Amino acid sequence: MKVDSLPTPALVVDSGALAHNISTMGTAWPGTSLRPHVKAFKSTALARELASHGHTAFCAATAREVVGMAQAGLGADLLLANELLDHDRLRTLAELDARVTVAVDSPETINAAARAGLREVLIDVNVGLPRCGCHPEDAGQLADEARHLGLEVRGVMGYEGHLVGIDDRRAREEGTAESMAVLRAAHDRVGGAVVSGGGTGTWDINRSITELQAGSYLLMDTAYAQLALPFRQALSVVGTVISVSRDGYAVADVGLKSLGMDHGNPAIDGHKVWFCSDEHLTYSPRNQGHLPAVGGRVWVQPAHVDPTVAYHERLYLVTEGDVVDEWPVDLRGW
Amino acid sequence: MKVDSLPTPALVVDSGALAHNISTMGTAWPGTSLRPHVKAFKSTALARELASHGHTAFCAATAREVVGMAQAGLGADLLLANELLDHDRLRTLAELDARVTVAVDSPETINAAARAGLREVLIDVNVGLPRCGCHPEDAGQLADEARHLGLEVRGVMGYEGHLVGIDDRRAREEGTAESMAVLRAAHDRVGGAVVSGGGTGTWDINRSITELQAGSYLLMDTAYAQLALPFRQALSVVGTVISVSRDGYAVADVGLKSLGMDHGNPAIDGHKVWFCSDEHLTYSPRNQGHLPAVGGRVWVQPAHVDPTVAYHERLYLVTEGDVVDEWPVDLRGW
Repeated sequence: MKVDSLPTPALVVDSGALAHNISTMGTAWPGTSLRPHVKAFKSTALARELASHGHTAFCAATAREVVGMAQAGLGADLLLANELLDHDRLRTLAELDARVTVAVDSPETINAAARAGLREVLIDVNVGLPRCGCHPEDAGQLADEARHLGLEVRGVMGYEGHLVGIDDRRAREEGTAESMAVLRAAHDRVGGAVVSGGGTGTWDINRSITELQAGSYLLMDTAYAQLALPFRQALSVVGTVISVSRDGYAVADVGLKSLGMDHGNPAIDGHKVWFCSDEHLTYSPRNQGHLPAVGGRVWVQPAHVDPTVAYHERLYLVTEGDVVDEWPVDLRGW
Repeated sequence: MKVDSLPTPALVVDSGALAHNISTMGTAWPGTSLRPHVKAFKSTALARELASHGHTAFCAATAREVVGMAQAGLGADLLLANELLDHDRLRTLAELDARVTVAVDSPETINAAARAGLREVLIDVNVGLPRCGCHPEDAGQLADEARHLGLEVRGVMGYEGHLVGIDDRRAREEGTAESMAVLRAAHDRVGGAVVSGGGTGTWDINRSITELQAGSYLLMDTAYAQLALPFRQALSVVGTVISVSRDGYAVADVGLKSLGMDHGNPAIDGHKVWFCSDEHLTYSPRNQGHLPAVGGRVWVQPAHVDPTVAYHERLYLVTEGDVVDEWPVDLRGW
């Protein structure tokens, strides 16, 4: 099937760009030194592709992602890199036929994990991003509490998410060094084999960890593209031009419900994006370019991959205009 | 079940506020003078509730919404208030056991509708919003073309979407009067019984139409709340507090993938929202308020209803903390 025959809006992944991204990251972070983050693509088919390249340890942001991965037979080493207090969901995780580790950052999350029958945890340490993660000074005591309750503490994790988007590489380097010094110090108090951290924006900067958590590098978006990383834009939302105005603009069927909008408007090569509505995108050609024809196709680059993917039921793998595979986005929801 | 027992993030609808909104709008626009827009809630259960109040004509933004409504037995008068060129989808619409009308604004969309076997159309007229809709001067000729192809032209539609969010009521009134003058003039050239337009923001201003298209009034959001409309905030996303920092902030599990973000951050009563990540929301109490406890619940008001609902699989109808019904969000996708 041709891309031009797909029902739209269609989430399309360039197979060559994806292969390049997998290879580039895999060279620097081979095997289980990379822990791909399934939240970025929410597809067990794509996860299986990563596993075939030796990346058999994964991290996830939701219980649903962990469950889906385990059910797909990809449960060799699953980290829920997020805090969870829901007893039913934690029980479900504990009963999976999979190795499941959960992040904890408080007595409450430790108790919840132990009570549900989870066996392994990582101490989640705040390294500067005001989000989850315990105060670094509390990490050792939390590890003691976890061990006291019979949990195996595999080590620490800390995400320098406040730094991954900084344009200036030097500033990113310095910030990462500081954050990772905090994480290593916490690790000294916690123990265990694992120091997990990083992301696409610090993939070649953060070297003081035992494993890199990264997901966006696979599909990329226009926000990360501004960092001059070697990863290629693999993801587009392909739309149909449904209306063209004599006033010089066109309208495509790619709207707010097919795009993550928190980083702003998407981009269209050679065009200016005016605005998005629920099911519409109004845009016009730059530099006296021609208006498209009604019924034509348009390739839209989302500003933020993760919440874009979460709107779609499937993604299409494409090689030079041909659809070569269709992957369900089967890890949506919670 | 109590709201406090729901798995989170949970899309919650206050049944009292919903009933108030249905009643307030239904008094001004009874029966089929109101054409509720299912794109705003994507649930056939909520549509059935509207039908039980006499609102048996609906509009939709996607083929999936139309198909789902017809399959739910709510196909008395379904308007696809959007342009569609996909032959397979148009065929599916034509073959439904339902009355289906589609919007057209070009020779291409008219031909597509006729070729697929659709029987009825509305001429979509641009009344000022740079989106779909033909130039007003072209409306008559398009109607002729449609009739020439055997289509029944039911009338016109035009959406003053560039005005519905204007704070100043006087400006909203003047703009709406101008836009509707354009629509009426186009209608003079087109004919047919229907003049369809409006929205929640012009519900008590736009009186020169035969039917009002409105959806947001049902659940409301913080953007529309700024217009001092008589509709009540009915929708929240309920989250769990998963982490609390000694630095004065808390983190809930309500992130970008459970919120439409194009209108900006959501709101939390009495609190300041710092930022959202994929599955997190960082916030803090205002005015020396207390930090919440880990495991507590937080009610988050989305800035934009429609793309928020589209992320969720179900919504919970709630009365004073009790979950009284669970409605599938069964019209998602395209």
